[in-house]
Amino acid sequence: MAVIAPSRRVRRTPFSDGVEAAGVKGYTVYNHMLLPTVFRSVEEDYRHLKEAVQVWDVAVERQVEVRGPDAGRLMQMLTPRDLRGMLPGQCYYVPMVDETGGMLNDPVALKLSEDRYWISIADSDLLFWVKGIAYGFRLDVMVDEPDVSPLAIQGPKADELAARVFGDGVRDIRFFRYGWFDFEGTSFVVARSGYSKQGGFEIYVEGTEHGMPLWNALMEAGRDLDVHAGCPNLIERIEGGLLSYGNDMTRSNTPHECGLGRFCSTQTAIGCVGRDALLRVAQEGPIRQVRALSITGDLPPCDRLWPVLAGDERVGQVTSCAWSPDFQTNVAIGMVRMTHWDPGTQLSVETQSGRFDAEVQAGFWI
Amino acid sequence: MAVIAPSRRVRRTPFSDGVEAAGVKGYTVYNHMLLPTVFRSVEEDYRHLKEAVQVWDVAVERQVEVRGPDAGRLMQMLTPRDLRGMLPGQCYYVPMVDETGGMLNDPVALKLSEDRYWISIADSDLLFWVKGIAYGFRLDVMVDEPDVSPLAIQGPKADELAARVFGDGVRDIRFFRYGWFDFEGTSFVVARSGYSKQGGFEIYVEGTEHGMPLWNALMEAGRDLDVHAGCPNLIERIEGGLLSYGNDMTRSNTPHECGLGRFCSTQTAIGCVGRDALLRVAQEGPIRQVRALSITGDLPPCDRLWPVLAGDERVGQVTSCAWSPDFQTNVAIGMVRMTHWDPGTQLSVETQSGRFDAEVQAGFWI
Repeated sequence: MAVIAPSRRVRRTPFSDGVEAAGVKGYTVYNHMLLPTVFRSVEEDYRHLKEAVQVWDVAVERQVEVRGPDAGRLMQMLTPRDLRGMLPGQCYYVPMVDETGGMLNDPVALKLSEDRYWISIADSDLLFWVKGIAYGFRLDVMVDEPDVSPLAIQGPKADELAARVFGDGVRDIRFFRYGWFDFEGTSFVVARSGYSKQGGFEIYVEGTEHGMPLWNALMEAGRDLDVHAGCPNLIERIEGGLLSYGNDMTRSNTPHECGLGRFCSTQTAIGCVGRDALLRVAQEGPIRQVRALSITGDLPPCDRLWPVLAGDERVGQVTSCAWSPDFQTNVAIGMVRMTHWDPGTQLSVETQSGRFDAEVQAGFWI
Repeated sequence: MAVIAPSRRVRRTPFSDGVEAAGVKGYTVYNHMLLPTVFRSVEEDYRHLKEAVQVWDVAVERQVEVRGPDAGRLMQMLTPRDLRGMLPGQCYYVPMVDETGGMLNDPVALKLSEDRYWISIADSDLLFWVKGIAYGFRLDVMVDEPDVSPLAIQGPKADELAARVFGDGVRDIRFFRYGWFDFEGTSFVVARSGYSKQGGFEIYVEGTEHGMPLWNALMEAGRDLDVHAGCPNLIERIEGGLLSYGNDMTRSNTPHECGLGRFCSTQTAIGCVGRDALLRVAQEGPIRQVRALSITGDLPPCDRLWPVLAGDERVGQVTSCAWSPDFQTNVAIGMVRMTHWDPGTQLSVETQSGRFDAEVQAGFWI
């Protein structure tokens, strides 16, 4: 396996020193920044995530800050989700699409105040799109990438660990809500969210200089909880059906194809880009959609799109796959045509190492 | 050193099978795609590039295709370079900036016809910006990423190798011009360009299925020329002063700071985004600018920005650095304030392994 070459273009994070000290073994690049992918082994990390608590460097979830009198109008232009009811203190998962309804990103938006939002992005330069729209429509907003780097606490003991560092108040944060909590005299956004199904928080660390002190404090406070450095885990996120932008959805897909139709209020999200394109699909439904698939056999790594076949007819694609120790099968995320998406449908998958049997599941493994 | 984790999100290229067969040892990620960084060793690759000929998988130079009645108008909005004289058959290096004059990308544009362009991009999702502008101004254009993957032939024997595969006509292509040339019955854009100072071509391979046949044909035809798989070489590109977007320039920099003022015709490029912001800097010049620096000592890898100091005063930053066997010094690219940018100025550089002496050079090493 090839190593990742060092360069300033692939940015380090405020937590990189901690990640290296913890013995990171693999990286990917996400938003022009290093994202750890494995510490001990993907399977050991997985087991530990489900049983204890991990601290994750997810600084790659860069923020697009939108600020100014037109911030609310711009935000509603960016997503088909109806934002009228959104209040400060809330996080909204907001699919963002282009004029054809194609996914550009699937970020989480935080409303900081009536005229200020953070958009916590997946892996694409959404900043460029937001700036382009703001400029084209001459909106009265500032759009920028602030010095904010999320650090996640994930796992069944996340509440206990977070409470030890930020106080018991964090236990009361509801899902997809956030509050402001102090660490060493500075106040940070702490949200109940994160890219796992094990529960936990994301701390929006504002100011690079606070990165390592917080990292170290969490590691120290969690010693008896068996805290470890971790990262989004391939197996756990596929089991849980957590889609990854660039893997399981791209600009070729509508939110409805990605199973995100419930976040699209195409009738009421007035002014959103892509509304015309999405109205029909909202009414009729997509003709292909994300499905959980189990695949049998000793598979190669899913480093490319795998065609899904019914006989020799192509009826879909698999885009993420991993062996699940808990479910004793290869768990996979794919996109399947409606003719073949019913649970129990027997299909095959064409990989770089040949064909393997697959079955459409009724849902993900959680 | 950590390995790079496989995932579909980090896209393979039409040439990845060839790159792997050639024994690639290191990768980076560039435009969400794999870019090889080393085959034998960076120094061996460097020596070979200067003496023979290499074939480079630079599919990461993705194309933004702009097509339609408003294509010309949109192109001029995107860059402060005056495009009025641009003809089909020409390649233009076109800095692209946002409304504040900050660099968004430094692509090469190819004019295919009056209403059709390819923008061959550096490492940022320029597509999002171009789509945002086109949408905001309701321009009558299509903006998309076509299935086009550049393959470069670089090195002193590039003409000979290219001529063997595409015919002697390629020898007549002038610098930053292109022509259409046949390979196995399909016609491709072949341009005299590339990210080295050793000369050569870039073939814009349209259609993934043509990738490996062309790769193999070049390897076969160049056997007696000692052709090898190669890639943009860190040492050679620093010696030659070839800037890298994301390393040596970012959205914080104007083109003038990057030494690209000669590509900005702020008086005549009517309608370009960022014109107001650049008018003053065009007149007065920037207060910091890219400089070649030599640095003494046994340096760590330049995987982060290194502050440049005069005594204890910060006067700049180094963003790329490598040991040059030919010039027997560490060659570096930095940005230095005008108070300290004169050739011969003695400075120091703060790295992760301590301070090292540096000297501002009169120019790059070529």
